[in-house]
Amino acid sequence: MARPSGRAFDEMRDVEILPHVNKHAEGSCLIKFGDTHVLCLATAEERVPGWMKGTGTGWVTGEYGMLPRSTGSRMDREAAKGKQSGRTQEIQRLIGRALRSVVDFEKMGERQVRVDCDVLQADGGTRTAAITGGFVAMHLAFQHWVETGAMASVPINDTVSAVSCGIYEGAGVSDLDYDEDSTAETDANFVMTGSGGIVEIQGTAEKEPFSEEEFLKLLELAKKGCAELTAVQKEVLGL
Amino acid sequence: MARPSGRAFDEMRDVEILPHVNKHAEGSCLIKFGDTHVLCLATAEERVPGWMKGTGTGWVTGEYGMLPRSTGSRMDREAAKGKQSGRTQEIQRLIGRALRSVVDFEKMGERQVRVDCDVLQADGGTRTAAITGGFVAMHLAFQHWVETGAMASVPINDTVSAVSCGIYEGAGVSDLDYDEDSTAETDANFVMTGSGGIVEIQGTAEKEPFSEEEFLKLLELAKKGCAELTAVQKEVLGL
Amino acid sequence: MARPSGRAFDEMRDVEILPHVNKHAEGSCLIKFGDTHVLCLATAEERVPGWMKGTGTGWVTGEYGMLPRSTGSRMDREAAKGKQSGRTQEIQRLIGRALRSVVDFEKMGERQVRVDCDVLQADGGTRTAAITGGFVAMHLAFQHWVETGAMASVPINDTVSAVSCGIYEGAGVSDLDYDEDSTAETDANFVMTGSGGIVEIQGTAEKEPFSEEEFLKLLELAKKGCAELTAVQKEVLGL
Amino acid sequence: MARPSGRAFDEMRDVEILPHVNKHAEGSCLIKFGDTHVLCLATAEERVPGWMKGTGTGWVTGEYGMLPRSTGSRMDREAAKGKQSGRTQEIQRLIGRALRSVVDFEKMGERQVRVDCDVLQADGGTRTAAITGGFVAMHLAFQHWVETGAMASVPINDTVSAVSCGIYEGAGVSDLDYDEDSTAETDANFVMTGSGGIVEIQGTAEKEPFSEEEFLKLLELAKKGCAELTAVQKEVLGL
Amino acid sequence: MARPSGRAFDEMRDVEILPHVNKHAEGSCLIKFGDTHVLCLATAEERVPGWMKGTGTGWVTGEYGMLPRSTGSRMDREAAKGKQSGRTQEIQRLIGRALRSVVDFEKMGERQVRVDCDVLQADGGTRTAAITGGFVAMHLAFQHWVETGAMASVPINDTVSAVSCGIYEGAGVSDLDYDEDSTAETDANFVMTGSGGIVEIQGTAEKEPFSEEEFLKLLELAKKGCAELTAVQKEVLGL
Amino acid sequence: MARPSGRAFDEMRDVEILPHVNKHAEGSCLIKFGDTHVLCLATAEERVPGWMKGTGTGWVTGEYGMLPRSTGSRMDREAAKGKQSGRTQEIQRLIGRALRSVVDFEKMGERQVRVDCDVLQADGGTRTAAITGGFVAMHLAFQHWVETGAMASVPINDTVSAVSCGIYEGAGVSDLDYDEDSTAETDANFVMTGSGGIVEIQGTAEKEPFSEEEFLKLLELAKKGCAELTAVQKEVLGL
Repeated sequence: MARPSGRAFDEMRDVEILPHVNKHAEGSCLIKFGDTHVLCLATAEERVPGWMKGTGTGWVTGEYGMLPRSTGSRMDREAAKGKQSGRTQEIQRLIGRALRSVVDFEKMGERQVRVDCDVLQADGGTRTAAITGGFVAMHLAFQHWVETGAMASVPINDTVSAVSCGIYEGAGVSDLDYDEDSTAETDANFVMTGSGGIVEIQGTAEKEPFSEEEFLKLLELAKKGCAELTAVQKEVLGL
Repeated sequence: MARPSGRAFDEMRDVEILPHVNKHAEGSCLIKFGDTHVLCLATAEERVPGWMKGTGTGWVTGEYGMLPRSTGSRMDREAAKGKQSGRTQEIQRLIGRALRSVVDFEKMGERQVRVDCDVLQADGGTRTAAITGGFVAMHLAFQHWVETGAMASVPINDTVSAVSCGIYEGAGVSDLDYDEDSTAETDANFVMTGSGGIVEIQGTAEKEPFSEEEFLKLLELAKKGCAELTAVQKEVLGL
Repeated sequence: MARPSGRAFDEMRDVEILPHVNKHAEGSCLIKFGDTHVLCLATAEERVPGWMKGTGTGWVTGEYGMLPRSTGSRMDREAAKGKQSGRTQEIQRLIGRALRSVVDFEKMGERQVRVDCDVLQADGGTRTAAITGGFVAMHLAFQHWVETGAMASVPINDTVSAVSCGIYEGAGVSDLDYDEDSTAETDANFVMTGSGGIVEIQGTAEKEPFSEEEFLKLLELAKKGCAELTAVQKEVLGL
Repeated sequence: MARPSGRAFDEMRDVEILPHVNKHAEGSCLIKFGDTHVLCLATAEERVPGWMKGTGTGWVTGEYGMLPRSTGSRMDREAAKGKQSGRTQEIQRLIGRALRSVVDFEKMGERQVRVDCDVLQADGGTRTAAITGGFVAMHLAFQHWVETGAMASVPINDTVSAVSCGIYEGAGVSDLDYDEDSTAETDANFVMTGSGGIVEIQGTAEKEPFSEEEFLKLLELAKKGCAELTAVQKEVLGL
Repeated sequence: MARPSGRAFDEMRDVEILPHVNKHAEGSCLIKFGDTHVLCLATAEERVPGWMKGTGTGWVTGEYGMLPRSTGSRMDREAAKGKQSGRTQEIQRLIGRALRSVVDFEKMGERQVRVDCDVLQADGGTRTAAITGGFVAMHLAFQHWVETGAMASVPINDTVSAVSCGIYEGAGVSDLDYDEDSTAETDANFVMTGSGGIVEIQGTAEKEPFSEEEFLKLLELAKKGCAELTAVQKEVLGL
Repeated sequence: MARPSGRAFDEMRDVEILPHVNKHAEGSCLIKFGDTHVLCLATAEERVPGWMKGTGTGWVTGEYGMLPRSTGSRMDREAAKGKQSGRTQEIQRLIGRALRSVVDFEKMGERQVRVDCDVLQADGGTRTAAITGGFVAMHLAFQHWVETGAMASVPINDTVSAVSCGIYEGAGVSDLDYDEDSTAETDANFVMTGSGGIVEIQGTAEKEPFSEEEFLKLLELAKKGCAELTAVQKEVLGL
């Protein structure tokens, strides 16, 4: 068995993070996982949602969208359909939880960061690229506050990144692209911190149920993949 | 440390499944995980969604809702708000995937089963109760087709059930109730088949990231819990 | 002519009201008009709608829903369709008006009761069952406030109940079930107080216009039916 | 006691029906109940809703709207709010039922009439004016089909009109205007045919429950009022 | 070449403005451009949108709607469809900009005028009739404030009116009716003040691009047309 | 007076068109008008809208969106708000009309091109950039069909581009950026063909009405600007 892309089983696609790609956003990057390109724009705001007012603590949220023709066949625009799909909302919630897992809300004060992750081109793994790039954009937005004197240091405890792994033609492989993702027997997304903690695991049997053994194989691949992503994030951010 | 309910760490709540509770639905049950009560009504239909027409195969979907006052403080009615929350959609998608994992769509022919899981009273674990009860309602709907001669046998390969486990005050516990769920450090939902295969894992760090060791502890608890749920399902269904 | 159910012309279905069926709601009951089952959950809230603030008086509203498979053929979920049907809104408004007709808003103070009536199983007469059970749930919610010391006595002047009567195969019959309702020539809903006052009358000719004489026959049946419902309500509430 | 308008208890407002007020609609009239002005435009269409296709019979529907400033204080536009209120839907359903009660759908063939009733100026009784004027517009639309040879005769069995009566300061009065409507103790709408049959009764106690005796008084007033409306309709239509 | 209506190339349709046609609106008129009839109702309110509070200045907005059967074939009701079309929103925005161009917001104080323009019958040029009549309604609403002493004088600097001109069968014509509008090669709407200033130009090539020369021809026609409309406005308002 | 950017009155910003920037879209480009960046993705589809079926002719539509943080302060996501703003719809309609003005629908056959213009970064003039880039993307999509043999030649008669000009501090200037656009007295968008025909003019007085003379000045600037844009388009497309 060979992967369609010719990659080794535990080989990620080329990962590239281009920071400062937007003149308005306080933090921004364009992240590429191979042909998957996600624009991550973080907005730093001196206010919090109504239910947090007076708590003295901050908040971080993620939003997600796909351009209509980011995919192989064009999708209708969610704004035109008048609602976001269940999939979109599920991914937005995941991004928000992932980013919040490494933020110290006490240190933030009553401020919020909103991270928009918009997929310009999709080739599998858009949500994992969004989390990985979203972290960089969020970090840059905090740095902006540090530079303007709003806070003393970046209130982030750790890095966070994500990768999808799966069982493809019977074997565990790392960082599924679209060809693999659409035929994989099992697909699991792992969100992990730079220090190796697990933030979120979402594993789904697409056809047959999977075994504990298979699952542990995927977890191994994910640990390796996230470690590589962490290195790219740290280099871009100068950490 | 002790659980608020006084249960042992690996002790599920009392689980009760009352079948045939609705005169209209082809399959139905009321499932109780302690004080969590979910009404599961399965509708057997001689048609499939438009995109499946002519394929000769069937389909199963799940839908989920909570009565406004099923919870401690009343929620607004989703029908009145004009849309389903991201959480509702996420759970509906999970229920559908879980139920479909054990169905043989070829044997179904062009038919569909739609399983409505409505929470009458919530005390944590509504989605896992919905999957476990939804399976029973779906099975009964298939039996209805067998009895009316529409199909020779129930086109189901295995049973499927679900349980949530978590890290509560540092220890792994099984079948979280609301008191535990709202303060647990980590919460994971496991969907497993009767023969022990894993269909879905969703683990989330609510506060601190969790370790692989902790996660494996939860997986052990889930295997034990799902085995117990399987026994209840089989007894109700006479399998 | 005979009724499909074998009932006498002025005979109601068996009516059963099970109180305290929900651990969260301040007032609750499950009401059964034969095979029509409606879960009524009343929420007592220490606040009023914005337009009432500062008036010192209270408010009561009703909401209504049907589970998708409460009926013979499954209906789409209103939350999924993104709006409530005209029929749902019409019934909600009727329930609210009926319940408010017996409440003393001055004595309530600035509080509100919201009564959710959700149909678990439908066999005709869901709105009349909802009003009759909704009154019980509302009364129990007020009793809760009395027990907690929020008010000295239950601020209710009278009981209120409802019944549908119709012309079926030329004869007036009481408490239509689905078989009768779907073929009746005329269908009228009556909401009446325990002391015999009329709160609401809604009579509709489904086929031929009806005469004043026919209408008065239905009114007689309604008075008898509501008197019986009042007796059941009083027994359950210990009035 | 005297009515604000100085009318006698059983005196209707001046009723005027101006036919043929729109160059596009197959049937049209502007109806005035005093200062309540409703434009009724009937559209004759050679098609039926999907669920009626192939039945060989026709259908009639009513729609209702109020211009934002038809009322004393401006209401938001329903199109801008993105949904029709419960009140609007309730009235639309009532208009449709009323108009359908006098139509012979077999004779219509597979055609439909849609009657739009839009309130240009409101002063109480808009729904009863809409039904009364809507009947005239519908009749004219059928006459259009007769004139164009689509059908041999107008497939209408009877006329239909409507009036609201109420208990105002303790006395029964006919055709409530806004001043009366907003303070009446009881308000009832009656839809009746030209030959005296009752099509719909909707009576509501706005404050105290009402008695059977009071209700019968309103019914007497309604019969007199609808007889007068019938005479105006017949004169306009040349029947 | 001749115009379908027999009008000269630079001849407007008969324009009629009937003021004070609604008992509730502070300013109102019915404007007729031939068979195009638009009801313009202006509401004077002692409040401004949230974003203007505390500025001490006022605001004017326009809204637009068409009755479902104002046109040759019936359109669905926007309120029923749950949203306003792009065309409706575009016209509303245009009306608002046009009316605001002649108002002195400082002199208004924190008040707003909302002008509803509802098309009762359409025969081309509804937006230009709406602007022309909307100005009259707005002016009357300001006069109402002057009469009630809320302001010393009408805070309007100039009149504003609008006309559509087009290239029809190769020639420039003024005030297109529906027959011309639906086949014109080019259609342009001009909004102009009484003193000859240009407020808005919207020119669109419906088939072939048009030349600067053609455009200047339309501009000449528009100047003549708006001058005639200005005269009618001034006469109605007694300016 | 000097322009904030230091440009000459008739000087456009640097315009750059990068073609083939998306692996899925049949035609694509990223267009930059200075700091305004719009991604234009054209989808070539072998089908037409329902109302065109059987006509043998084709269709072209445009859609438009802005990323939430493409602007100086973040806007809410239209998909989350559940509807597209009036501005968005107005621009979409404009883009569609502009692109269609140069296409030969007969030669297209029953096919459609949908051009999505999404603003990645906004600095004024997004709609004119969208039209100019959208034309390039559309042309490339037609070339794709030519290359695959679906049609013999590109069914486009001319190029089309757009520029905004305005009166800024009393002087006419070309290609307004955000600083100018937000304070300009008058703002006009011109859509013109490569051969100099006018497709659309939209001129709006933001403060004072403008004169014919001022308008003609803007038209001169627009002709010069569109000629420069045409040259860039032709170079990119090799025309």
